[in-house]
Amino acid sequence: MRPYAGHCSAPAGAQAHPAPVRLNGDSRSKLLSTISLAFDACGIRDGATLSFHHHLRNGDQVLNLVLAEAAARGLRDLTVAASSLFPVHEPLVTHLRSGVVTRLHTAYMSGPVADAVSRGVLATPVVMTTHGGRARAIESGELRIDVAFIAAPAADRCGNLNGVEGPAACGPLGYAMVDAQHAAHVVAITDHVVPYPACPIDIAQERVDFVVTVDSIGDAGGILSGTTRPTTDPVGLQIAANATRVIEASGLLDEDFSFQTGAGGISLAVADQLRSVMRRRSVQGSFAAGGVTGYLCDMLDEGLFRALFDVQCFDLRAVDSYRRDARHMAMSASLYANPHGKGAVVDQLGAMILGAAQVDLDFNVNVTTGSHGRILGGSGGHADTADGARLAIVTTTLTSRAGLKLVERVGCITTPGSTVDVVVTEAGVAVNPRREEMAQRLKAAGLPVCAMTQLQRLTGQGPTRQAPARDGRIAAVVQYRDGTVIDVVRVAK
Amino acid sequence: MRPYAGHCSAPAGAQAHPAPVRLNGDSRSKLLSTISLAFDACGIRDGATLSFHHHLRNGDQVLNLVLAEAAARGLRDLTVAASSLFPVHEPLVTHLRSGVVTRLHTAYMSGPVADAVSRGVLATPVVMTTHGGRARAIESGELRIDVAFIAAPAADRCGNLNGVEGPAACGPLGYAMVDAQHAAHVVAITDHVVPYPACPIDIAQERVDFVVTVDSIGDAGGILSGTTRPTTDPVGLQIAANATRVIEASGLLDEDFSFQTGAGGISLAVADQLRSVMRRRSVQGSFAAGGVTGYLCDMLDEGLFRALFDVQCFDLRAVDSYRRDARHMAMSASLYANPHGKGAVVDQLGAMILGAAQVDLDFNVNVTTGSHGRILGGSGGHADTADGARLAIVTTTLTSRAGLKLVERVGCITTPGSTVDVVVTEAGVAVNPRREEMAQRLKAAGLPVCAMTQLQRLTGQGPTRQAPARDGRIAAVVQYRDGTVIDVVRVAK
Repeated sequence: MRPYAGHCSAPAGAQAHPAPVRLNGDSRSKLLSTISLAFDACGIRDGATLSFHHHLRNGDQVLNLVLAEAAARGLRDLTVAASSLFPVHEPLVTHLRSGVVTRLHTAYMSGPVADAVSRGVLATPVVMTTHGGRARAIESGELRIDVAFIAAPAADRCGNLNGVEGPAACGPLGYAMVDAQHAAHVVAITDHVVPYPACPIDIAQERVDFVVTVDSIGDAGGILSGTTRPTTDPVGLQIAANATRVIEASGLLDEDFSFQTGAGGISLAVADQLRSVMRRRSVQGSFAAGGVTGYLCDMLDEGLFRALFDVQCFDLRAVDSYRRDARHMAMSASLYANPHGKGAVVDQLGAMILGAAQVDLDFNVNVTTGSHGRILGGSGGHADTADGARLAIVTTTLTSRAGLKLVERVGCITTPGSTVDVVVTEAGVAVNPRREEMAQRLKAAGLPVCAMTQLQRLTGQGPTRQAPARDGRIAAVVQYRDGTVIDVVRVAK
Repeated sequence: MRPYAGHCSAPAGAQAHPAPVRLNGDSRSKLLSTISLAFDACGIRDGATLSFHHHLRNGDQVLNLVLAEAAARGLRDLTVAASSLFPVHEPLVTHLRSGVVTRLHTAYMSGPVADAVSRGVLATPVVMTTHGGRARAIESGELRIDVAFIAAPAADRCGNLNGVEGPAACGPLGYAMVDAQHAAHVVAITDHVVPYPACPIDIAQERVDFVVTVDSIGDAGGILSGTTRPTTDPVGLQIAANATRVIEASGLLDEDFSFQTGAGGISLAVADQLRSVMRRRSVQGSFAAGGVTGYLCDMLDEGLFRALFDVQCFDLRAVDSYRRDARHMAMSASLYANPHGKGAVVDQLGAMILGAAQVDLDFNVNVTTGSHGRILGGSGGHADTADGARLAIVTTTLTSRAGLKLVERVGCITTPGSTVDVVVTEAGVAVNPRREEMAQRLKAAGLPVCAMTQLQRLTGQGPTRQAPARDGRIAAVVQYRDGTVIDVVRVAK
């Protein structure tokens, strides 16, 4: 365990990970009729590490099905390495309590699992990574996966998989691509077997040992994020307008311009307003990336970008775009954000729009815990994109129903302030002192630039320091994208 | 060195290959202006292993450019691991003579390099692999590549590469994909830099350390094989007609049917005639694969197959098809033919049309040496596809200008007879005794089935055994797809 060194450090003697070896002698058909047969075939034992990906988000049933089998078999001490965990994964709480699963490794968790972890259900702290850090850990051999389970919307008898066909079509399987490449064994779970060969292929047969057929891998409706429409709230729209003006004033809006945003209401409003600006200025940028929404696809359709890089779709319009448009390209989590690869897409990003649960005077951002100190999310690609993008913009209201958002010191550092360039609120725009030239540009463009301390004063909050808990048992360690530990989450009292 | 065991054996304690580690700190631009700078950046020293791929075939200039630099630097004892070597690589002969290059590893060689090797220019025997065996060797770590040089028809500043743009567009970079994934360092050489991001992407930036720009990577005209039209010779057409009838009678011609053929005149005539049969019988097969020609693309266009798997294009029509049709899918050499992966495409093949320099009474095939004992080719995918396909058909005339083609014992075993099902000649069709049920099917369909000895009698050749040379220095060892040694080539006297 290396402490966070204040920047994204180079790999420390990265250990090679053994290449996967063929398990299934019959490559002509890898079909199995039950998950139980896959457990037998892969020899899953106590203490195994099983991995999962979250392209079906809150519609996923694969993790629940697999862990129900593990529990039925009386397995113990499993590690679950899931790229993200959602409320739908509530049954996992039972397995955490019973000791079927004793370790978690994830980039994001919300819902009952997050609550249970916050309350201290696990003796061993959860490892919370970034999306890129997860890929790095897998590629370096730091996280060794015994069996990767892949929720495959479509699969053929030989294990060619794609995410564009079948009832649970969800788009490219970017996170699973890394697991499939490095796990000792790979089991695809599907409810839609297509004739050989699947076409297109997101993950090829050379990576897959078995294909298990089940009635349903989940509900594609659940892949939608909570919010998939631009905000209509006037405060949110004001923030989005300011963020769009920041991009316009930044000097980045040329043919090299690239853009990523999430699926929150303010983020989508920025995409929407940016679209008008790019149209008006007749700019064709380079690419948009990320978790992809239909809004980015519309911008591609309109010629505002030349290409999309997509690690996961946030809505069904994006799935459809990926299906029909070759410029809408899949990317693995490693290509997306691995800091120790030969170059990730996040490192090419121009402007990145980020959300925040809390931001502090040092521009540190917390998207891991709420003001109550309990886990409500995690980095996902937050820290990766903030570090990689030339212009990392955090959009946030000063306060929310849950309490203050602009605070003296965040309860948990997900993303270090050194990688955040601008914080945009309804009351003004704060520029990181490291980016003085950007502050000048924004002022020149008439943006309401002010110091973070000025913004903080507007919250009505005094300068008292809201000290985070510094004792108590550790519920989760928060890893930065390079695998160093940037913070911890204590068990909530 | 394990002896050939009579079948495709399982991996013997496959050793893990270390994951590549990032070399280039600046992932935003990997551009270098000279190959010399890439040698410096990668620290290429005496004894290094450099790899190359052959998608530009006899038009390739990258191997020559790189080795000229090596020679200019006075480097010694390099190993050149080239997926294939062509007449255009004549300058390599000088480097073999001078000791700049002392080891070769390839799946095919023709022209001056093959002649020089046959004459004994190297003290260390050349390792001749199959295309699948090469991928296996690289993935297992048996062949460790220090620097992979990739001839990239198009590249962006971050090393995203494709084969569909630029003056040397050659189609998917299937062989290079394996090198790019496993080599310690990867250098793309391009004459066509495109704006970021290249789109589509055949090899992604996460695999590439540097991009060197040169005036020309070669002549796309040279990617054409010698023959790219169906034969018009009556004997060749008769053979093709018999081969087509064999496929029709085999029982394979249904919705699971899949097909591969080379770019020779008889092979293309089979494709042409098969097309008419499939049309007439209203069959839509599963896939065609291989080195892909325009003939297979036409069959895809016409709906006779649902998809193509393409490891390299044999002609420019195929390049165009790959560019525009998502059903025309790229595959890596590993996905194509690695016998130790989790399942290769060749293992799913229905009918495979193979050529031969010599075939013998035991159905062994030689495509490595001529009747004079000198190297004139190599397996490429020959042994891989013969082993994988359900119906491996060798088409050959009984004799050729170069001498007998049907012999008692081939001068070199490239492909073992146990994996060859049917030999089709102008005088009759011989079925491997292991496939008695196939012989019955073909007889029932009225095909001129006869014993191999009967065919041999027609050549006018007595039963005398043309004993291959069993002494003298070894010029090349011939590896079967699993890495076992199936034969050797002696230095020609």
